[in-house]
Amino acid sequence: MLKLVIANKAYSSWSLRPWILMRALDIPFAEDLIPLDTPEFRPRVSAYKAGSTVPILVDGDVTVWESLAIMDYLADRFPEKQVWPADIKARAFARTISAEMHAGFRGLRAACPMNLRKRYEARDRGELVSRDATRVTELWRRAREGYGAQAGGPFLFGAFTAADAMYAPVVTRFHSYGIEVDASLRPYMDAMLNHPAFVEWQEAAMRETWIVAHDEADEPVIGPFR
Amino acid sequence: MLKLVIANKAYSSWSLRPWILMRALDIPFAEDLIPLDTPEFRPRVSAYKAGSTVPILVDGDVTVWESLAIMDYLADRFPEKQVWPADIKARAFARTISAEMHAGFRGLRAACPMNLRKRYEARDRGELVSRDATRVTELWRRAREGYGAQAGGPFLFGAFTAADAMYAPVVTRFHSYGIEVDASLRPYMDAMLNHPAFVEWQEAAMRETWIVAHDEADEPVIGPFR
Repeated sequence: MLKLVIANKAYSSWSLRPWILMRALDIPFAEDLIPLDTPEFRPRVSAYKAGSTVPILVDGDVTVWESLAIMDYLADRFPEKQVWPADIKARAFARTISAEMHAGFRGLRAACPMNLRKRYEARDRGELVSRDATRVTELWRRAREGYGAQAGGPFLFGAFTAADAMYAPVVTRFHSYGIEVDASLRPYMDAMLNHPAFVEWQEAAMRETWIVAHDEADEPVIGPFR
Repeated sequence: MLKLVIANKAYSSWSLRPWILMRALDIPFAEDLIPLDTPEFRPRVSAYKAGSTVPILVDGDVTVWESLAIMDYLADRFPEKQVWPADIKARAFARTISAEMHAGFRGLRAACPMNLRKRYEARDRGELVSRDATRVTELWRRAREGYGAQAGGPFLFGAFTAADAMYAPVVTRFHSYGIEVDASLRPYMDAMLNHPAFVEWQEAAMRETWIVAHDEADEPVIGPFR
């Protein structure tokens, strides 16, 4: 069986990506959760001989890391699962926005660390966050209008794909930090937040007891995540 | 015909990636070079309705950006060209190290901007550069020892693939800034620096007259790039 190595469900946005993809597409896997900021983190990650980060996917003698590469490996390994959209043009756009996420949106990521236990008051979070949020919603709109709406499902390209997995932790950030999106994108946000795979992950995050101080914003909490 | 939108050959490491891949694999394309740091850069890039960066690939009504997504699109569009290694395990490793490059090695990239016209004196460039260089060479070694050496060609996975394209500007940085690699990796560096596609690009870089001040290191030059 495949094994996915992840970190805390409350905080590890990179771990969430392949996990939610595999769960959403019904790809069975075992999980090895290594808690962040603990003495065991580094040695247990190193033992996989990947890099210094999670997620890591192990499939027999194949070890893959970097969330985008894990998704492409899953696409190769399970072609019937439609990890990427079937149409070449839709697939190109899905990969483009996924690659843009993989290397970008650092303003948003730095200012609004993923936190699946809390919601904070909406407030101005500065120019970088606002610019990233504008760009993300532009990409979501182009995906929905160009592909998702015609395909009939609520996700970016209709059915849940790797592109949704890549943006899942952006949906949760918008939700946690009260960043508003266009009304036209609200159904997409809701579809993600209510997807059974996401609900399962988020409920597990609520049960975790680890606290990572630098991922906890020092600002008023208006309530639990859900 | 495909069109690839790029920036200055002397400086644009992201542009070099898909350009060298397409040239190395004999995929014909037209080129639109938009010079960095000029008033025309932003409006000409915006006209493609991609993002704010290059490279951008245009193929009829398909527009793809982000170098990694361009490579995956080329793999879809030209399956006979073997953009990625044919073996699933080799392909997984090639994609992993390409994704690691796509989002990482920021210490090296920031301290040693690509410059294809000059060689600088070797010197200590700090902890971040040294850590990135160590990691890059570890990944190259694993690729060469695990796949490339058996496959018979001089590149990471034998023949030239997208992984080599992703690391081409790292080879040039090591060369420009006098960063030493293990003797076992010297043939890989030489194969890249002498590849006809790279030679063509670098010679064009020498003929460019644009100077981008922030990509010119303020330190002693020991000679031209080649």
